[in-house]
Amino acid sequence: MGPYFADDAASLVSDALVGVARAHADLLTLQAEHGYLRARHPAPARRVAVVSGGGAGHEPLHTGFVGTGMLDAACPGRVFASPHNRQIYEASLAVAGSAGVLHVVKNYTGDRINFGIAAERLAHRGVPCARVLVDDDLATESADIAAGRRGTGGTVLIEKILGAAADTGMGLDELAALGTTLTASCRTLAVASAAHTAPTTGAPAFAVPEGAVEYGVGIHGERADHAIQVAGIGSLVEQMTHELLYALAPPAGAQMIVLVNGLGAVTQLELYGIFDALARHLEARGCEVARNLVGNYVTALDMRGFSLTLLVVDDPQTLRYYDAPVRTAVLHW
Amino acid sequence: MGPYFADDAASLVSDALVGVARAHADLLTLQAEHGYLRARHPAPARRVAVVSGGGAGHEPLHTGFVGTGMLDAACPGRVFASPHNRQIYEASLAVAGSAGVLHVVKNYTGDRINFGIAAERLAHRGVPCARVLVDDDLATESADIAAGRRGTGGTVLIEKILGAAADTGMGLDELAALGTTLTASCRTLAVASAAHTAPTTGAPAFAVPEGAVEYGVGIHGERADHAIQVAGIGSLVEQMTHELLYALAPPAGAQMIVLVNGLGAVTQLELYGIFDALARHLEARGCEVARNLVGNYVTALDMRGFSLTLLVVDDPQTLRYYDAPVRTAVLHW
Repeated sequence: MGPYFADDAASLVSDALVGVARAHADLLTLQAEHGYLRARHPAPARRVAVVSGGGAGHEPLHTGFVGTGMLDAACPGRVFASPHNRQIYEASLAVAGSAGVLHVVKNYTGDRINFGIAAERLAHRGVPCARVLVDDDLATESADIAAGRRGTGGTVLIEKILGAAADTGMGLDELAALGTTLTASCRTLAVASAAHTAPTTGAPAFAVPEGAVEYGVGIHGERADHAIQVAGIGSLVEQMTHELLYALAPPAGAQMIVLVNGLGAVTQLELYGIFDALARHLEARGCEVARNLVGNYVTALDMRGFSLTLLVVDDPQTLRYYDAPVRTAVLHW
Repeated sequence: MGPYFADDAASLVSDALVGVARAHADLLTLQAEHGYLRARHPAPARRVAVVSGGGAGHEPLHTGFVGTGMLDAACPGRVFASPHNRQIYEASLAVAGSAGVLHVVKNYTGDRINFGIAAERLAHRGVPCARVLVDDDLATESADIAAGRRGTGGTVLIEKILGAAADTGMGLDELAALGTTLTASCRTLAVASAAHTAPTTGAPAFAVPEGAVEYGVGIHGERADHAIQVAGIGSLVEQMTHELLYALAPPAGAQMIVLVNGLGAVTQLELYGIFDALARHLEARGCEVARNLVGNYVTALDMRGFSLTLLVVDDPQTLRYYDAPVRTAVLHW
């Protein structure tokens, strides 16, 4: 057995996929040959399929969001590695609706390349395809980073809202435009007090000084460009909230959907305490927490850290999409 | 900041309670003076209230199961410490239905004493009160252990089923008898490859040898009476399954509700792989996995371990209770 409860890093992912398909057989099926999960019961009015994917190790993203009202298919790669373009192509071809397929892609080079190749092949087959590039990670907002901001926690909220919009029969271009608007209103910031365990060596992927956090860590173990000493959890959450609000510049009285996300080894006790601090800071600055999610939604294996995501609601229809029924392994209402 | 994302061990719990009440204000309220969470909308036909509680550090147990169709109130203690009998008394008095209150108590000395004192005080006030003692932990099945088996993962399944039964208007004695029958058909076994982080010192609560697991660990960091070297995850799950089946001795073709539960720092990838192995072993032995839950339901802070729970379904009505609608922070269908 390796450092994880699996025989090795490869079977960690492959066994989990079989287990997800077995546990949630009412919701989805595993296409074993091409390595993707597919929803059993898309909404009848949905014309455009919604497909996502990315490296494994971030579960429940994306496999936990396949079902009715959210993703039609999810394509997992190996741990922290993009899925192969063939997976994406086959999944998209299998689920594409009468009006095509929307790819929700987190902004990483590998994912962009593989979703891009799949999209070209789909176009060649006459399947309309558009992309929403999610790039919500504030820590990578810098003119020096040519790749742009990374995609992270906000992906869950955007996939939920786009799924509900697709269920109304919305067309491909309109869905892509909605996704782009949502992404522009969404920022995430993550910290970690300990790295994840590297699946191959069993050692922490990096060291964090005692009493400090990596400030602006990524979900693949990308280190932040600095660690900060933490005086208290309240001041840490306040600083993060301040930076998110500065970047988003919401109008007075803005409504928000907030996600307090555990990166792996953080307890629910901590996450709910952090949520309370976040909500108090937001309210003190005149913002309204319209909806919230608190839990492990976009993880980095067993990293000891958390992320805060704010999505500013510019249009009341966004909340109606968010509230629309969903039936997946994780989101279910 | 302490080893957890909280200022200290006390605020870890108290801040979380405020956060839970804020995040799930549609489902429950916090009674701050007496320190319990109370459901907002019990089912109209429910005559007997269902109340549980226990030490904190096991979230989402029990706070995540307060709402409609499950618990009327949850009384959290400090980390790994029983709630005070006053909390339990006040919560029970506040929610007791026309036919009294059922206490679901995990079998630990502190919990038994405090729920017992509360029950005596309730009887004194003329409030009928009965107890279901959950003692599903196979690792503590020994004639040498006077306290009996501990209560652990099975508590979630039993609280779900009893909540649905209470919603039908079932009376107190019948509910207590149902709970006792369910507990007799339910066993859990837990292993850990690393202990939780002690909230006061920041150090692991105990050491586990490299490549080994504590076999039969408790949810408060009670060590097992032995550690075993693990050849592979498949053989570990097979051994656990074998011991659970030996203890439960289910009839041929028995249906089961199974819970694969993360104790804190274990990833979803691991849990779903473990679930697949468990389901295969059960099917090979002629058992049917009728329902499953895979995730973090009864944790031990950030312990790196998992538990397997089997509940043998003796009566088809049990599955109907399990499937009945529930609306809590965690179970929601």
